[in-house]
Amino acid sequence: MSLIQQIIGGDRRALAQALTLIENDDHNSQNILANLYRHTGHSHIIGITGIPGVGKSTLINSLAKLMRKRDDTLGLLAIDPSSQFSQGAILGDRIRMRDLLGDKGVFIRSMATRGVLGGLSSTASAAVDILDAAGFDRVIVETVGVGQSEVDIASNAQTSIVVLCPGLGDSIQAAKSGLLEIADIIVINKSDYPKVNLTKSYLHEMIDIGRAAQTRGSETQTTISDTHSVSNGNLDTDNSLWEVPIITTVATTGEGVGDLFEQLLAHYNHIKSTGEMTRRRNRRLRAIFESQLRKQLYTKLSQMLSEDYCLRQLEVIMEGETDPYTAATNCIKHFETNYIGDEE
Amino acid sequence: MSLIQQIIGGDRRALAQALTLIENDDHNSQNILANLYRHTGHSHIIGITGIPGVGKSTLINSLAKLMRKRDDTLGLLAIDPSSQFSQGAILGDRIRMRDLLGDKGVFIRSMATRGVLGGLSSTASAAVDILDAAGFDRVIVETVGVGQSEVDIASNAQTSIVVLCPGLGDSIQAAKSGLLEIADIIVINKSDYPKVNLTKSYLHEMIDIGRAAQTRGSETQTTISDTHSVSNGNLDTDNSLWEVPIITTVATTGEGVGDLFEQLLAHYNHIKSTGEMTRRRNRRLRAIFESQLRKQLYTKLSQMLSEDYCLRQLEVIMEGETDPYTAATNCIKHFETNYIGDEE
Repeated sequence: MSLIQQIIGGDRRALAQALTLIENDDHNSQNILANLYRHTGHSHIIGITGIPGVGKSTLINSLAKLMRKRDDTLGLLAIDPSSQFSQGAILGDRIRMRDLLGDKGVFIRSMATRGVLGGLSSTASAAVDILDAAGFDRVIVETVGVGQSEVDIASNAQTSIVVLCPGLGDSIQAAKSGLLEIADIIVINKSDYPKVNLTKSYLHEMIDIGRAAQTRGSETQTTISDTHSVSNGNLDTDNSLWEVPIITTVATTGEGVGDLFEQLLAHYNHIKSTGEMTRRRNRRLRAIFESQLRKQLYTKLSQMLSEDYCLRQLEVIMEGETDPYTAATNCIKHFETNYIGDEE
Repeated sequence: MSLIQQIIGGDRRALAQALTLIENDDHNSQNILANLYRHTGHSHIIGITGIPGVGKSTLINSLAKLMRKRDDTLGLLAIDPSSQFSQGAILGDRIRMRDLLGDKGVFIRSMATRGVLGGLSSTASAAVDILDAAGFDRVIVETVGVGQSEVDIASNAQTSIVVLCPGLGDSIQAAKSGLLEIADIIVINKSDYPKVNLTKSYLHEMIDIGRAAQTRGSETQTTISDTHSVSNGNLDTDNSLWEVPIITTVATTGEGVGDLFEQLLAHYNHIKSTGEMTRRRNRRLRAIFESQLRKQLYTKLSQMLSEDYCLRQLEVIMEGETDPYTAATNCIKHFETNYIGDEE
């Protein structure tokens, strides 16, 4: 039986193996992804994002227990910038998720892809597709950090949960990092801490400002995927019909997590019934397509960087005889003139 | 007088204009950078990174005042993921820096580059080069957020300051995001808050673990720039001679900021006297070279994406007739066969 068939058949070892191939950027990964693709599209893909320390792992642990009560299967992907310092922290996360260990309906995987040129978001999309093809009812993608790459990853989800906690520059933490723009549901965890109401009212204000800006912006912006949804007859795809709920939780006790799960289900129903689902699917496909193109170009880049010509340019820069801007242009020219010949 | 001469001559309007050209990725920007390059290399480049809300802006305001007392000129670059929600936050930052406004020896610029494919880190490096060429004694690069792209930007600095505050998952916030690896100086701001000693002892432990891991790791890793420093005779470039200081500050009152400035100067002297300066310069040049290559490939990517062939592939994906992985491979092949012909 092929790896593809094993994965679709629910074989967890085959699944883990495929994820490793993707993570290592094995030459077979492209092929696996292309073959699994037609089995995707059935999972509810949930993104959970927030700065480290707000309690995402504990929240996921609570949420997963509710999903399992309904017999929903769950694939969990934690995208972690790999760091020699973070070993202990990842272990800590797994401890916070101990209730899930040993449950056949739950699959947990950490992926660390730091250093792979442009690989973070393309590896994450690919892993989501594999979990989707493996038949999980819900796939949770947890990102650690609140930078641009994390926002890119999170924007692939059908439902994006942004987790905050009271205090610490209040809602500014989320506003600055661009996270609020992608939130379908906002969670204020550790809501037993002081200042929770202040944080909540700040957030409401931010969302109102953001919505006003979005309404103005949408008059001028049209992307390829938008145009496509319109041509499919899905004119009624405006996400502004969805009022982003702000839910307060105490993940350690499970308080509020029931509300969060209800809102997750409500949002999934909302996007299915309004055509927003198709719009997000198309947006995600476009993103995967672009990140695959980017990735293949990166492969060429690393080939270029190991070529004698580029290595020599680098030396010349370091000797102070040229600048890195001119040297890069020279390399690209060299590549354009010589690459195709090298291929054959 | 040309723009280049004006910038070198200290004309602030010309400087602002050049930064705008870079930010907009104007077709002249490559040329400007190549011409300014030989005037760079004189500024002390300082990175300040940390999650939103730890008080970076207030800290920079205090630090800048100390620099100005010594008559050091200062260029400040705040790299901000542009967000419709963040307008207020940026304004807030500028208010926290009000002491610096109107001072001719200080130049402040926010750059928002979200959405530019791979542009964040290459725009940041380019802007640093421009400020360096403009003759500032110190250039501070402030990043907002703690994701992978922020770590990439911060690693360009000669001296990297990582700012934390007590509580909130303690030092885990920094460990997870990979920030500690790049820290030359760690600041615990808001040190009048509770738990500051706990945070400090956690951090000391993390640094010890990290240093042990680094020592093990360095036996197997050799990069081009490492090799280069060795061939230059700079064998004595091990940064482990520098003990990363952990400084507690209360930026709002200025407490501890004097210590921070002393450590900044000490670190700059350290890297100049040990050859670490050359090693970092070479690492940065390599990073600029790579990001310029990446950027030029991205330009090709957007050309590809607007070509009929790729647009058609995207439609076929959305109609469900192919998968994005195969479609991307098709586009790259199409590009390889046809691109050079299109150039002429």
